[in-house]
Amino acid sequence: MDKVILDKLKSIVGTQNFLDSKEDKLVYSYDGTPVFRHLPEAVLFPENSDQISEILRLANQNQFNVVPRGAGTGLSGGSIPVDNSVVIVMTKWNRILEIDSSNLTAWVEPGVVTGIFQKEVEKIGLFYPPDPGSLTVCTLGGNVATNAGGLRGLKYGVTKNYILGVEMILPNGELLKSGGKNMKDAAGYNLKDFIIGSEGTLGIITKVLVKLIPKPSNSITLLIIFNKLVDAGKTVSDIIASHIVPSMMEFLDNTTINCVEDYAHIGLPRKSEAILLVEVDGRSSEVQEDAEIIRKIAIKNNAVALKGASDEAEANNLKTARRSAFSALARKMPTTILEDATVPRSELPVMIEKVTKAAKMFDVMIGNFGHAGDGNLHPTCLTDERDSKALDKAHKAFEYIFNEAIKLGGTITGEHGTGLSKKQFLESVAGPAGVDMMKKIKCAIDPNNILNPEKIFSISPKCEGILPLKREQIKNFNA
Amino acid sequence: MDKVILDKLKSIVGTQNFLDSKEDKLVYSYDGTPVFRHLPEAVLFPENSDQISEILRLANQNQFNVVPRGAGTGLSGGSIPVDNSVVIVMTKWNRILEIDSSNLTAWVEPGVVTGIFQKEVEKIGLFYPPDPGSLTVCTLGGNVATNAGGLRGLKYGVTKNYILGVEMILPNGELLKSGGKNMKDAAGYNLKDFIIGSEGTLGIITKVLVKLIPKPSNSITLLIIFNKLVDAGKTVSDIIASHIVPSMMEFLDNTTINCVEDYAHIGLPRKSEAILLVEVDGRSSEVQEDAEIIRKIAIKNNAVALKGASDEAEANNLKTARRSAFSALARKMPTTILEDATVPRSELPVMIEKVTKAAKMFDVMIGNFGHAGDGNLHPTCLTDERDSKALDKAHKAFEYIFNEAIKLGGTITGEHGTGLSKKQFLESVAGPAGVDMMKKIKCAIDPNNILNPEKIFSISPKCEGILPLKREQIKNFNA
Repeated sequence: MDKVILDKLKSIVGTQNFLDSKEDKLVYSYDGTPVFRHLPEAVLFPENSDQISEILRLANQNQFNVVPRGAGTGLSGGSIPVDNSVVIVMTKWNRILEIDSSNLTAWVEPGVVTGIFQKEVEKIGLFYPPDPGSLTVCTLGGNVATNAGGLRGLKYGVTKNYILGVEMILPNGELLKSGGKNMKDAAGYNLKDFIIGSEGTLGIITKVLVKLIPKPSNSITLLIIFNKLVDAGKTVSDIIASHIVPSMMEFLDNTTINCVEDYAHIGLPRKSEAILLVEVDGRSSEVQEDAEIIRKIAIKNNAVALKGASDEAEANNLKTARRSAFSALARKMPTTILEDATVPRSELPVMIEKVTKAAKMFDVMIGNFGHAGDGNLHPTCLTDERDSKALDKAHKAFEYIFNEAIKLGGTITGEHGTGLSKKQFLESVAGPAGVDMMKKIKCAIDPNNILNPEKIFSISPKCEGILPLKREQIKNFNA
Repeated sequence: MDKVILDKLKSIVGTQNFLDSKEDKLVYSYDGTPVFRHLPEAVLFPENSDQISEILRLANQNQFNVVPRGAGTGLSGGSIPVDNSVVIVMTKWNRILEIDSSNLTAWVEPGVVTGIFQKEVEKIGLFYPPDPGSLTVCTLGGNVATNAGGLRGLKYGVTKNYILGVEMILPNGELLKSGGKNMKDAAGYNLKDFIIGSEGTLGIITKVLVKLIPKPSNSITLLIIFNKLVDAGKTVSDIIASHIVPSMMEFLDNTTINCVEDYAHIGLPRKSEAILLVEVDGRSSEVQEDAEIIRKIAIKNNAVALKGASDEAEANNLKTARRSAFSALARKMPTTILEDATVPRSELPVMIEKVTKAAKMFDVMIGNFGHAGDGNLHPTCLTDERDSKALDKAHKAFEYIFNEAIKLGGTITGEHGTGLSKKQFLESVAGPAGVDMMKKIKCAIDPNNILNPEKIFSISPKCEGILPLKREQIKNFNA
């Protein structure tokens, strides 16, 4: 990038908010996604919306790219720099601006850490349910950009169900405000819900209005151990069929169980093919009733052990197995590729088998765990990216897994986003008309394709040929 | 419209599905919205997706407009014909295609009547919560197009919370499939949620995938009568603050109470300033507990009478007052303008006062009722459209009401949509950047502006000047 432009950027954000040493750029060349990395030209920490607008206007004038970034915990490469790009880091925008307990809403800056925000609102009896695995690190802005999910999705939904408003700087530098404290709003197109999950390609989020709910007063957590995988699958579908909606219904397979036991030494039975972690919450009487029904379903389906917890400390102990799954798998091998193929929940047992088959077919080690109640699995391949043959096998295994998920009516990502790592599969799940519509919208909003380009889909650098131009328009423009 | 084109349209859908007599066109010249009406050139009942695609391709080639329509119960003029348009009626697409009880989903055609669908799924213990006032007549396709709400919004949300997938024919004639049976999906832009509420301007819906939930086993309905409006307002905010989430919390003002009593003779006290209708649902123990807390809150706030019902027949009796509000008001005067200004719920008491003030200021009769728990009011003006002075006063009163709602952080429509009747207020709630973004997206998807034009916003007939064209693009196109 031209030194003149870099100097202009430095003068926009100030020297203290500008990094361009090799070491600093290296730190922002990757995110939580393995394999992908790319050096930015500079790293910027803008202090206000005007600075973001100025950067974006400069990018349009000078044809460089801008990549927004929160905590960088993403698992699909959504915040990895591309050619000729600067990174805008939003982690310093970390203030909770307002908690409105009469409307049950909160205004936050995008850099607020999800877990910290949850603790703050719980202090006054309120609840922000979305709990991505990275909640102690990840930011609410990143959660909005990826429509992040988490363990409580089955009962409470995902990030989009808790966002009432978004403020963001559009690629042309203008400020867009969408949504508000109204519980219902049907005025015009639903821009707010469209922005959620757009992975930083349509604007840079500067403020988020969150919806809160009353915190459930009681919960019971159950850890259920099965010798046979098929029994765990049957238990999940029987619970759904019983019309109980657990706040959590998580699954771990044998590979994951053994990695967790190696790591955490919590006495998990190494021969068990599956563990379910189920939580129900709500009123005391209700959770007792639900837990009893779940116990009976588990026993009927040959559960070999069943541990219960109704206070938070005990429950956290039981949750250790699930919460440490990713770390426990990750320490086995230099590279951990964690994916989130998702299927209609009735297809979960079939999908679990397909993952096991993929591991065998392509001779790779895959631990499998995830949100069983949602049909959202996290098959996790343990490999070594320095070994190109091993990496190739891993990619082939995932290609198989994604294609099988799609055949079952599933999708390539339940909660991580498409980013760089899954864009080659997008058309097979969204269809050519769907991808075409996405590209047209992107080009209408960002005609120079300067904002987080190459993410979700690839388009020609300047959107040529994407928009359906009319001869009349061209005449007008040339006139 | 040219006879040659009309003949082509007739040959696409068949003579039996083509109407163009004056009488037939008159029937489709209006919807549930007063004042607005316009004759179409013809009325078409296409039998399959291919016919819809052909009609849209013909419209692009020959520059005529296409206006899709369900049952025509809309209250913002979203399905009223415009100049040089044909109406496509979807009411014959009324089959429930699949109810999948293992995934708790249903595929339906867009013409399925909402109330009929609800009864069908309740037969097998499932539940589709959205319940717009017109549920015995309106269609699911129309509900999706307007993101319809209803009485149960406070606890259960609106239509968008229950739509997992949409199939529709885009303006260029292509079929778009978006969404599926997955509980979570983060693949690409969220086209599905963007289509919901786009009022037939982006495509014609041909199939809808609905999410169902288990039907709550118990409910208690309470009708609470207040002498003073302020006490009803305080009761609503105390219930919200107690962290109870009723499945319904409806409000009727004195004008509405008197109209209902004139109509239904159910013994409502004519001097009462406000009635609240509150319903809680869930497990038996939970609803008993909640109902008791609500009773205490109401008594503390000077409720003068309190009637309870726990079986469906009794509950329906109590609901008569609310369910008949619109009809009861409508019979008073030739023209009933029902609006849906919505505010953050903490502002509800202020907004109720503003509506009362508007009625006095502009000397019009306004009954007020609505979804108190959501902050979603239905101020209903009783007037006579043949009296231009009276109509002018009504419009001025609503202009005042909308502006006051916006000042309170509210919106011009909670659940009816923008359509024709509220587009002049859109920019004051969505902002210039928001409206600009909406128009850009519309023009990217429908560059000839043939599909339901003039709804939500006005754009020049061929989207001239809307899309941010690049010189490079134009060179390519001309090359």
